[in-house]
Amino acid sequence: MKAVVFENQKITMADVPIPVLSKNEALVKIHLAGICATDVALFFGHHNFAGIPGHEFTGVVQSAPEQPDLEGRRVVADINCGCGQCDVCRTRDPRHCANRSVVGIRGRNGVFAEFCVLPLSNLHIVPDGIGDKEAVFAEPLAAALEISRQVKVSESSKVAILGDGKLGLLCAMVLRQFTPNLILIGRHPEKLIIAELQGVRTICRQGGREYETSNIVSEKFDLAVDATGSPAGINEAIRLVRPEGTVVIKTTSFEKSEIDLAGVVVNELNLIGSRCGDIRLAVDFMEKKVIDLHPMIEALYPLDSFEKAFEHAMRKGSRKILIQN
Amino acid sequence: MKAVVFENQKITMADVPIPVLSKNEALVKIHLAGICATDVALFFGHHNFAGIPGHEFTGVVQSAPEQPDLEGRRVVADINCGCGQCDVCRTRDPRHCANRSVVGIRGRNGVFAEFCVLPLSNLHIVPDGIGDKEAVFAEPLAAALEISRQVKVSESSKVAILGDGKLGLLCAMVLRQFTPNLILIGRHPEKLIIAELQGVRTICRQGGREYETSNIVSEKFDLAVDATGSPAGINEAIRLVRPEGTVVIKTTSFEKSEIDLAGVVVNELNLIGSRCGDIRLAVDFMEKKVIDLHPMIEALYPLDSFEKAFEHAMRKGSRKILIQN
Repeated sequence: MKAVVFENQKITMADVPIPVLSKNEALVKIHLAGICATDVALFFGHHNFAGIPGHEFTGVVQSAPEQPDLEGRRVVADINCGCGQCDVCRTRDPRHCANRSVVGIRGRNGVFAEFCVLPLSNLHIVPDGIGDKEAVFAEPLAAALEISRQVKVSESSKVAILGDGKLGLLCAMVLRQFTPNLILIGRHPEKLIIAELQGVRTICRQGGREYETSNIVSEKFDLAVDATGSPAGINEAIRLVRPEGTVVIKTTSFEKSEIDLAGVVVNELNLIGSRCGDIRLAVDFMEKKVIDLHPMIEALYPLDSFEKAFEHAMRKGSRKILIQN
Repeated sequence: MKAVVFENQKITMADVPIPVLSKNEALVKIHLAGICATDVALFFGHHNFAGIPGHEFTGVVQSAPEQPDLEGRRVVADINCGCGQCDVCRTRDPRHCANRSVVGIRGRNGVFAEFCVLPLSNLHIVPDGIGDKEAVFAEPLAAALEISRQVKVSESSKVAILGDGKLGLLCAMVLRQFTPNLILIGRHPEKLIIAELQGVRTICRQGGREYETSNIVSEKFDLAVDATGSPAGINEAIRLVRPEGTVVIKTTSFEKSEIDLAGVVVNELNLIGSRCGDIRLAVDFMEKKVIDLHPMIEALYPLDSFEKAFEHAMRKGSRKILIQN
């Protein structure tokens, strides 16, 4: 099969054998895959990963010996594969298993290929009403929904989202369904409009190198989400929340952040790290059709043109780049 | 009356008029007062405070025109005085009122004096069973108890406290009442013993400049409390907690902290700032007599010898220094 291989900051288009199934695994034919900021980080060696990358996808089950009724069904998947044996897997959440593999990120090949092997227990069937170009957003959508699992967001909650990148937009459009008192603060009018057309109030802050919004927004928020991608974004989020308010950190920067913790202590703030979420919640959410994901897509490339697609995805400010098989 | 005055990093022993009461205030004769790290910070100009410092105390109500039944009663007090008018005061917690004054810290004279004026609503009567040398710990004890209000700590919770300063010791002795699975990690055998004699498991880490305990403690904790007083303590606490675990930040450093937030995001940690607590809870706790506070006291000085007392309190590693009237 055709596959993309990352190694030592090189992309190789390889012809590799179709992977062999272990017990309780399925072979999935990949239809659509999305390129994510994490893939760019992988490419630059930040996760010490070598192999087939890619973790955002939708596809069709080709073979599932232990669960043949799945064959031919469209699926998406949870990307964390816990060991199933440890305390964390048995009593809490395999997403946090210390020995987990992660599809296309850690110890397990991903979806920038014709086929991918996935544990049966990670698969979720995509209902007919959800198109491929929506389903491919299941993973980042689950990451945005994770916030609503970690923090109580109700109709009266005042929420600010910082950053109009792909994840910031998704966070804004998702949390807008929980509260009308939400604002998205970004720098790119062409991206903010995507959220704005779906009922999100936005502020565009152009000019100036510092991400300093407190001059623009004087109100204080119950919740601020840092999705800026910048190590300094956290400080702006901290300044925006009220005493005893919450900051959700979505930025995974590889630089350290300099934080004035005295303010966090005096105002008794709650800072919560937030990674990926529950794909099932994302599928349920998509089925409700409350947000339109199509404007998030910037371009589609065939798998053969992965290098071009990746160059495109690396352009600052690009929306979602998809790979079609 | 005799009073201590801080201004421009100078201590003056002054003779000032006995303060005049406003509406709904009481005049309290101070019996015992404690010197706290915050007082040292005030002295060095960190809170932009000039006036009579001091916020840990116990005393007797001398005059309370609107509540004469309080006269002659022993009291302690909440130190945050909200404006009573704003949304925060009316709907949440005056401790977080933006216009609050704070006894001996912000916009209001404190207790290193013969008398102090306090709002009636801040006063709490000290039951007979609690001695002055216990009651004087009400404020820092409330700060330690605040953790149990912010985080659910149950018998099965695994807790690590970092730092064997006065607040670290109190946090350890208090949270030990909620769970037996608690460890206090410090550097001073002569301080750790105070907690150890009250049933707290301790680890003494001597040598090395870095506060690096992960080599000593291999287990992961549900909750780690940073009471190191060092801007780097937070990173050690972060390393000690399990995925989805909680770090409570008690350190108020005036330097910024460099934090690797990627780990916080990937492990979805919860970092919670924690300041002062509810004095009522502290009084209830003291009444149960479950911990012995007396070994926390290092020395008593008369108010006239405040300068000597303050020098003593500034010595690294000193326990609580009290001022007696």
